[in-house]
Order: sequence, then C-alpha cells, then structure tokens
Amino acid sequence: MSGATSVERIRLLQTRRARDQTGTFYADGVRFLVAAVDAGAPIEAVVVAPRLLKSAVGQMLARRLRMRGVREIRVGADELERLSPSREPQGVGIVVRQRWESLATVAAAHAACWLAIEEVRSPGNLGTLLRTTEAVGASGLVALSRSVDPFDPGAIRATMGALFTRRFARGSPAELSAWARRHEVVVVGASADAAIDYRQVSYARPVVLVLGGERKGMSPAARRACDVVVRIPMVGRTDSLNLAVAGSVLLYEVWSQRHPPGGLT
Amino acid sequence: MSGATSVERIRLLQTRRARDQTGTFYADGVRFLVAAVDAGAPIEAVVVAPRLLKSAVGQMLARRLRMRGVREIRVGADELERLSPSREPQGVGIVVRQRWESLATVAAAHAACWLAIEEVRSPGNLGTLLRTTEAVGASGLVALSRSVDPFDPGAIRATMGALFTRRFARGSPAELSAWARRHEVVVVGASADAAIDYRQVSYARPVVLVLGGERKGMSPAARRACDVVVRIPMVGRTDSLNLAVAGSVLLYEVWSQRHPPGGLT
Repeated sequence: MSGATSVERIRLLQTRRARDQTGTFYADGVRFLVAAVDAGAPIEAVVVAPRLLKSAVGQMLARRLRMRGVREIRVGADELERLSPSREPQGVGIVVRQRWESLATVAAAHAACWLAIEEVRSPGNLGTLLRTTEAVGASGLVALSRSVDPFDPGAIRATMGALFTRRFARGSPAELSAWARRHEVVVVGASADAAIDYRQVSYARPVVLVLGGERKGMSPAARRACDVVVRIPMVGRTDSLNLAVAGSVLLYEVWSQRHPPGGLT
Repeated sequence: MSGATSVERIRLLQTRRARDQTGTFYADGVRFLVAAVDAGAPIEAVVVAPRLLKSAVGQMLARRLRMRGVREIRVGADELERLSPSREPQGVGIVVRQRWESLATVAAAHAACWLAIEEVRSPGNLGTLLRTTEAVGASGLVALSRSVDPFDPGAIRATMGALFTRRFARGSPAELSAWARRHEVVVVGASADAAIDYRQVSYARPVVLVLGGERKGMSPAARRACDVVVRIPMVGRTDSLNLAVAGSVLLYEVWSQRHPPGGLT
C-alpha cells in the first residue's frame, strides 16, 4: 500500500462506512497518542507530519511505536490536516482498532457501572458521556442500536482521550435485559416522566444506566428492559436536560453513593 | 427601514459585534418563540416566512405579537434560512433585547444560586449550562469577562429555549467578591486541584458557583474571589470533565442539598 493510498484510506475513516468496514478509527493529536499508548490500545498505524510534530513526547512515542513494528506513515503538513480538520494540528495521528465485545461474553464485575445508550444525535454528547464514565471509573458503553457510534470524529474529539480505557459492547434492549438478569445487574432507565427521584434508588449493586436519545427518550423495548425508571428533578418550565448532562448527573450519583464524602477515597 | 435591510441587519446578529452594538440577539424556531413569550422577553421583531410556518401555535403567537405592536418582518423561505442555518427551519424567528444587570444592583434572594463563568471556548457548553441553571431553578449567569457571550448563536441553540428566564449580570472577579460579601453570598470555585470534595460544602446559604474556562481553569483573580474552592472527584487518568458537565454536577449538588430526596418538593 503506497503512502498516498494509505492517506486516502485514513481520510475515509471520517465516514461511518469506512470505520465499519475496516473496524478501525482515526484520532489525532498528542493527547490521544499518549492516552492510547497508556491504555495499551491496538494502534495499527501512526501518521506523522515531521514538520508539525514539535512535541518531544509525541516524537518519542511515535518512534517507540515504530520500533515495536507499528506502521508509520510520513505525510506532509497539508496531508495531515486533510485527515482531520483541526485548528492546531500537532503533527501526529493514530489509526486504532475498534474493540467491541459481545454483551453475552461481558462479565459484570463487582460494583460495575455501565452506560447503555439507545440513540445519540450529537456525537459530542456521546463523547462527553464517555469522558464522564472514565472520570467515575465506570466500565464502558453498551450501544443499544447501530446508530450509536463512539468512533465518530465528533465523539472522539469530545472524549478528550477518554475512550481507549473504555469497554464497548453492543446488544439489543432484550439482550441487555437477559445479560443483566444473568449477572444480577440492576437496569436503571432515565426518563423525564418517571415517578422516582434518581436519588431514591440504591446503586450499591452492579448497575447499568439506560439513556434514550436527545429527542424521544427511551423506546418501549428499552423501558421493558429496565428494573426501575428514574427522573432527574427539574423545576420551572424545563422539560429536559442536555443528554450528556443528564447521563453525567446519574453517573455521579452512582459514584457518590459508592464513595460517600469524607470517606477514604 | 426596508424589509431587505432589516433582514441583512438581523443576519449580522450572528456576529458578536452587531449583537453588542444593537444590544439584541436573534433566536429561531417555534420553541424559542414560545419560551420568549412565556417569559415576557423583550421581543423587538418577529421574522415570519409564511410558507414555512406550519405550527399553529407559532402562527398564533406571531399574530398576537403583531397585534401588540411588535414589528413583523415577512421574508421568503430562503431569506429566513440565511438568518440562521437550521436543518429544519420552522418559519419563524425573533429579535430579542439582551437584558444585562449590573452586579452592583443585583439583590441576592433567599436561597439564590448564581453561576459565574470566566471564559468559555465552546458556546455550546455555555448554552448547556444555562439550560441546567433553569432546570435547577438557579437565578442566572454572572459573566466575569467580556468573552462570555450567552447570546452567541451556538450558545442560544444549546439552551433549547432556557435563556429567556435567566438573569444576566456582568462584573469582574473583584466586583463579584464585593457583591458576595455585601449580600452574604458564599463564593464557591471549582478546580480539579482543590482539596475539598464538592459534597463536603454546605450550600444552604445563597451561593455563586465560579467556573474558569475549558483549558485553564480559574484565574488567580477569580480564585481570590472564592470563599472555598472545591473539586469534583475523578478516578483513573482523567484530569478534567467537560465544562458543562462539571458545572451541572455542581448545580445539581446545590439543588440536591436544598431538596433532599423524599422531602416535599
């Protein structure tokens, strides 16, 4: 594969189709390179624009990857910018293999916390949620439909690097329900019209939080998978929160109950 | 002022300069029209594209505003779309006067909660935060620098309409500090390197939460204005949360302490 062809193929990773076909994604910038190496992510190639790569850490990591046998693709500054439009290109990017697990084979660890999402219109919201799942030490994401794509460039950007430590599983709401029963995981859905305050549920057991989409909320199938549906109280005329905010408030409630303030954290 | 000129002037409200010069902003869509009318917002003009305006509520509100003497500007569908690029134009938009208060004249009501922000790079984050302030019944926003513009189109969009009920004040960190002392408002800053867990502070008294920016956090001047600086705990390698998420988690903690679960809310 010639250099030019490689670059064109990587550029295509901006599309869902190419990401699905290759099972990879592209992330650019030193922050993502560092996070990927730290997490032992399956990096398939490193793209380097020598003229732009000023970061000493970036240079060192790119060199180490090359020595480990990871393919390095050298490009010009303008070629790199075409791969991923960025205001401040840092001269390095990586092609990484997507790691998906089947829900059937996922074990639910002690005190696990998963986030299941049915639909996301804004990739930024999805990436922001992944960032929060890392902050609270949650396990990862269950994508309840094909429309949920954590490797969309907008989602990747919003994670700020918090995606290489995440676990990703796919399954239908029915599969989620079966998995949760088998592993004694409590399925907690979120809906603005629920009767139960999200703070009135105990999150001591392993839990999976289920979010619908920005517009329609959970589908009937997702609701059926839930052991309990909670609402985040809102006052005034507000009828909804930003999806990433709602999910993050729930994730912090789970974390907070498990790590009371003043305790040894 | 001819119709064409009006449209051009409204289009310019996408720029900060024109918003500052006129003291107005433009919001489009039926949701924003409804929210503005409900909140008694100072609507200066209604822009209607009759061919696109299918909503019966939208038509009725536009008519009522016209009868109350609000200027109506009729435009073609393509003209309306030039005012505010939208995937699903709904045929109506409004020009609204910005209402800013001087911090010196703001009274701090019983159980008030304000959000003060020093800098925002993403207008979407600012709009999302305004949406959460409405959800928890907080008073509004204190802009600690000129760079904080809640009437940026991206911010407006992210509020989903939750901006007409908000109060907006401007002031420097020093003015915030003086105001807080005068009204016995506790100033609580947020920083990833603070020692105190955000849940260990009592938010029973009137409070103003201070956020820095996405990148640099609070400036020294803002830190000096704070009575206490708290952190939101994070595990693993995460060193920060999305700004809108961090602010929203804090706003919900304030709300949550004031409205314990199971109580009469």
